[in-house]
Amino acid sequence: MSVVTIGSIALDTISTPVIKRQQVIGGSAVYSSLALSLFAPVQLVGVIGEDFPQETLDELGRRGVDLSGVVRLKGRTFAWEGVYGEDLWEVNTISTELNVFEFFRPTLPDLYRKSPVIFLGNIDPDLQHSVIPQLTGSRLIAADTMNHWLHLKLDTIKSLISRLHVFFANEREAKKLTGQTKVYRAAQDIASMGPRLVVIKSGEYGAMVYERSSARSFWAPAYPVDHVIDPTGAGDTFAGGFLGNLSRESDPYHPDAIKRSLVIANVLASFTISSLGTHALQEADEESIRTRVQAYLEMFPSADDNSLRHLGLAPAAV
Amino acid sequence: MSVVTIGSIALDTISTPVIKRQQVIGGSAVYSSLALSLFAPVQLVGVIGEDFPQETLDELGRRGVDLSGVVRLKGRTFAWEGVYGEDLWEVNTISTELNVFEFFRPTLPDLYRKSPVIFLGNIDPDLQHSVIPQLTGSRLIAADTMNHWLHLKLDTIKSLISRLHVFFANEREAKKLTGQTKVYRAAQDIASMGPRLVVIKSGEYGAMVYERSSARSFWAPAYPVDHVIDPTGAGDTFAGGFLGNLSRESDPYHPDAIKRSLVIANVLASFTISSLGTHALQEADEESIRTRVQAYLEMFPSADDNSLRHLGLAPAAV
Repeated sequence: MSVVTIGSIALDTISTPVIKRQQVIGGSAVYSSLALSLFAPVQLVGVIGEDFPQETLDELGRRGVDLSGVVRLKGRTFAWEGVYGEDLWEVNTISTELNVFEFFRPTLPDLYRKSPVIFLGNIDPDLQHSVIPQLTGSRLIAADTMNHWLHLKLDTIKSLISRLHVFFANEREAKKLTGQTKVYRAAQDIASMGPRLVVIKSGEYGAMVYERSSARSFWAPAYPVDHVIDPTGAGDTFAGGFLGNLSRESDPYHPDAIKRSLVIANVLASFTISSLGTHALQEADEESIRTRVQAYLEMFPSADDNSLRHLGLAPAAV
Repeated sequence: MSVVTIGSIALDTISTPVIKRQQVIGGSAVYSSLALSLFAPVQLVGVIGEDFPQETLDELGRRGVDLSGVVRLKGRTFAWEGVYGEDLWEVNTISTELNVFEFFRPTLPDLYRKSPVIFLGNIDPDLQHSVIPQLTGSRLIAADTMNHWLHLKLDTIKSLISRLHVFFANEREAKKLTGQTKVYRAAQDIASMGPRLVVIKSGEYGAMVYERSSARSFWAPAYPVDHVIDPTGAGDTFAGGFLGNLSRESDPYHPDAIKRSLVIANVLASFTISSLGTHALQEADEESIRTRVQAYLEMFPSADDNSLRHLGLAPAAV
């Protein structure tokens, strides 16, 4: 089952307390494609400038990413510069140069329009919105957003959310969007706006998913990484991994499907943050991913633990 | 296996945006006793004034709590007043009246000294420290602390921590104690100071446990509660539930023992926060606890999920 992903393709400049590097391959469409391509043929929609390296396109092609929706325009590729603080968590955007992205109007090739799963990565919500009428019969429409847009285009975002099956937000965005102070309540409020699945990412704490029909929630921590190098793209990787796994589930709203997707999303994000840019995510293979999945699952209590079925509490409490 | 708990016994005044109530039964020793008594005979050490209600002592007695270590002195019981903000998370302490607590010097009755498990609830770290030489052959010495004491008696706390098997802290305290910005790193640093288990509580995100010998970590979210009424005592309930379950495990450092304890601690804390004071925790019985445990376990991915053993990723990634 193919997945269309639409978003930014970028050349980033990233500074952390330890390193500074320019021309780092990035963008929501790139990180999400790399993650999605582990699960499904990907159809990428985006725009690049003359300076974007052909070798990255070749690598995406080798991973089964269809690039016929990527347009190369005269000029420079979208460029973002961010500086991370000591905790490698909060980031200050130093500059955002739209460059060729200014002229990006996402148009889906005919072949893409029938794709059952769509990821609208973080870009201008008006552009995200413009994609929806182009879709015919999508089973899962998912989108991510960013704090920035909540300030500028709140109404558009709300209208977009009402059209989605799956909405990704980080905790700060979810709280801002709803005025709630608890993640769990924020997720419930967003679900009442439309999406059946609301996925709220909380950095080190991992992510929670709220499923509207069953009113059930699921929560899984971040995979613990000893040395975080660069968090850029973690959210897009998470979304790509989550949606990639959902795309191959027969019932994407089944609790087991949601839980599996949470596991995979957290594990893939752990690769992204352990190198600069896309390097570690690109290198991740079945073996290294499976190793982390197994270690990760060992962190959780098991529903099959018989001692928890029969608590055997002291008589006073029985 | 009996458990000794030492801490404050209080009459609290609690204000939330919704309610204000005086003379609410509280204190670290009371919340922890209520939770511990579900698992083991409890031996309570504390001090009360003339105003402390006999009916609460009677209720504790009915739950198998040995009160021979509770001294009643002339004067008023320790009184704490706190005001919670809109999010029912941050609390401002308005006043702390030590009253009879000023004269509290914890002395363990002979019978208590041989107890295999000890919980040193949040009180002056000098008092916590003074208990340790009174113990003979404890298997698990656990303590909790509070931000307040990290400002005033940091060296005493560090010395105390070096004598512990289990240390509880909330996230802010753990970060302050270590200078780390990530929970996971803070837990590792604290473990290197002595305790084999470091338990860091993060409110809505639940808690993580780091086990030093295996360098493994475990993480479980808070049980989702629709309407939080009063978070007072949640940390002490958590510690009591965690330690109560550990006390009955043959190997308290076994991953399964740790995970079970995390489940029980989170579930018991969810009762505490859903009523004012100790009410809901007191009412919790085997049946209501088991129901929440089962619902809670359904939130987690399962290590027995075969689809996660064989990821079956796309060829490009294999």
